[in-house]
Amino acid sequence: MQYDFLIAGAGITGLTVARLLAEAGKKVLVVDRRSHIGGNCHDEYDAHGILIHRYGPHIFHTNHQAVWEFLSRFTDWRHYQHRVKAYVDSRLVPMPVNVDTLNRLYGLSLTAETMAAYLESVREKLEAVRDSRDAVLARFGADIYEKFFKNYTLKQWGIAAEDLHPSVCERIPIRLNRDDRYFTDRFQGMPLHGYHRLFERLAAHPGIHLLLQAEYREVARQVKHQGLVYTGPIDEYFDHRHGRLGYRSLRFDFRNHRRESFQEEAVINFPNDYAFTRITEYKKMTGQQADSTTVSYEYPCPEGEPYYPIPTADNQELYARYAEEAKKEKKVFFAGRLGAYRYLNMDAACLEAMALAERLLAS
Amino acid sequence: MQYDFLIAGAGITGLTVARLLAEAGKKVLVVDRRSHIGGNCHDEYDAHGILIHRYGPHIFHTNHQAVWEFLSRFTDWRHYQHRVKAYVDSRLVPMPVNVDTLNRLYGLSLTAETMAAYLESVREKLEAVRDSRDAVLARFGADIYEKFFKNYTLKQWGIAAEDLHPSVCERIPIRLNRDDRYFTDRFQGMPLHGYHRLFERLAAHPGIHLLLQAEYREVARQVKHQGLVYTGPIDEYFDHRHGRLGYRSLRFDFRNHRRESFQEEAVINFPNDYAFTRITEYKKMTGQQADSTTVSYEYPCPEGEPYYPIPTADNQELYARYAEEAKKEKKVFFAGRLGAYRYLNMDAACLEAMALAERLLAS
Repeated sequence: MQYDFLIAGAGITGLTVARLLAEAGKKVLVVDRRSHIGGNCHDEYDAHGILIHRYGPHIFHTNHQAVWEFLSRFTDWRHYQHRVKAYVDSRLVPMPVNVDTLNRLYGLSLTAETMAAYLESVREKLEAVRDSRDAVLARFGADIYEKFFKNYTLKQWGIAAEDLHPSVCERIPIRLNRDDRYFTDRFQGMPLHGYHRLFERLAAHPGIHLLLQAEYREVARQVKHQGLVYTGPIDEYFDHRHGRLGYRSLRFDFRNHRRESFQEEAVINFPNDYAFTRITEYKKMTGQQADSTTVSYEYPCPEGEPYYPIPTADNQELYARYAEEAKKEKKVFFAGRLGAYRYLNMDAACLEAMALAERLLAS
Repeated sequence: MQYDFLIAGAGITGLTVARLLAEAGKKVLVVDRRSHIGGNCHDEYDAHGILIHRYGPHIFHTNHQAVWEFLSRFTDWRHYQHRVKAYVDSRLVPMPVNVDTLNRLYGLSLTAETMAAYLESVREKLEAVRDSRDAVLARFGADIYEKFFKNYTLKQWGIAAEDLHPSVCERIPIRLNRDDRYFTDRFQGMPLHGYHRLFERLAAHPGIHLLLQAEYREVARQVKHQGLVYTGPIDEYFDHRHGRLGYRSLRFDFRNHRRESFQEEAVINFPNDYAFTRITEYKKMTGQQADSTTVSYEYPCPEGEPYYPIPTADNQELYARYAEEAKKEKKVFFAGRLGAYRYLNMDAACLEAMALAERLLAS
């Protein structure tokens, strides 16, 4: 068979590139080993008729107007703004930590004006910030570290904060105000009829063929193409020749409850209690009305589908070696979360895919 | 690319053949022009979260234990038995016509024992049965013909009963008892988690690749294969070289109603009133619980996706010419409703596909 481009992976990266190439007149074959498109954003109705996200909660948010406008060609939006609470010391408090979080936990009466001074009074004055634990201690002090960061980090990564680069916990925002939204992006929402419909419409172009349940390797040699966009794990592409990159995986335990509502927010984090990191109630995000509700208990784990690049120095060094090799592949373009070994939100993946498509069409 | 078999069409015929070939160690590529598998059996959740059948109601029923057992490998069943009522003279009466139908319509007190004698008293004693109208008159008389058959036939086929072969209306059953089920097969049910799940599991085999949104023609020349199973319209395969076979199509108008139940049965037929032939309420078949309900109004029409071979002599003659050509194609196997230009229930399609797979593996 003959195509202009072969794309390995039918996630948001692969389909965005495919769509833009196809609209420019290219013939594209998108190959995915799964039986569905959409990658980890895929949603579906469970046995109880509740729309769930098989690979965990995906809430769309972006500051990139171009991304919002591009995806809006394929879906309307439910104007949902995500909120998360953390279960700490038997209380549900806003996450990220904001004025109300501290007031509720400590019985204080802080305001947006006095919160910075409070943090200044509790933070540890360290001489050097060597790791993620230091990073949190230096900003918020020991008690907030213990309550919100220490055990959550260990659950999430299987690595103590002391052993993680400072940037990992530095990324976690704190709010010196009462804004309790999880994201503050200008554009936020859920695809009105779900991610599956969005991706179905994104992929629906006569220039795009979708080959499912197939390994791109099985067909790459037999399909003539001018370029390969590879969105799978970069170490897998090179047969792990330098060793395996670390990926953190997730296991989801889905439970349906015969009541209308299960919890007060879409997501409740459990930094300290239980082995799961969070409980997600999907109806709270999708707005679905139903007598029962499905929630997922989320367990980070070392084995399984690759979700998150593990942010250690060893992994970054190993990735650099693969990135060197990748540069030599003149007709292969590595993209997406797994191809670039970087955590990417959906909007960042889409934006990079738009840029990649432009480069491919220009060359 | 190279496969043992290429299969055009991912409906129940194509996927059944594919599965059995793959289980015997063959590599199979299934190509479908649609973005989903399952053909016209495909179901999906609509914008209101109600599971609907995009191509109209499909109720599984069979007397073939082998078919039931084969499909039961891929789904559990909801033990649903289908009932239909017809709206006639402002009353809802059982379909097919049974003892209660006549009693309700005519204010009679027939029993299973006296119904045959009643029909004998009203039927027309014709010398010859030349068409479908004659066929009904000869069995049930003019009034039942007028109430149930005349206008429904015209709506369904766009052809008057006088112009249809007697067999078309002869096929329609009548019950000399009080059994008001639409089907009397030994095995009846709905896939417990829907047709899409069933087909997803049927197709989930490492020997099966699924190529969606693609015309089999675009790839047939470029994919090496030892045999092609073609389940599309047989006249299309031959570029309509002898002319176009007639297919009756359907248009569905889906409406969501904000109430729990819309009508008393899953399907209500309208032989005389309105332009649609029937209203289907999907929740009544699937058992889904929800505050709202979605129904489809079904309009037979001449243009659109091919649903039913039109049972006229002209079409049968034309089909015979294509069937002659088909015989000459030694490596192409025509199968399914469109490939064989015959109305096939799901179970018949599955049974024939099982037999075809066996023949292909034996040769």
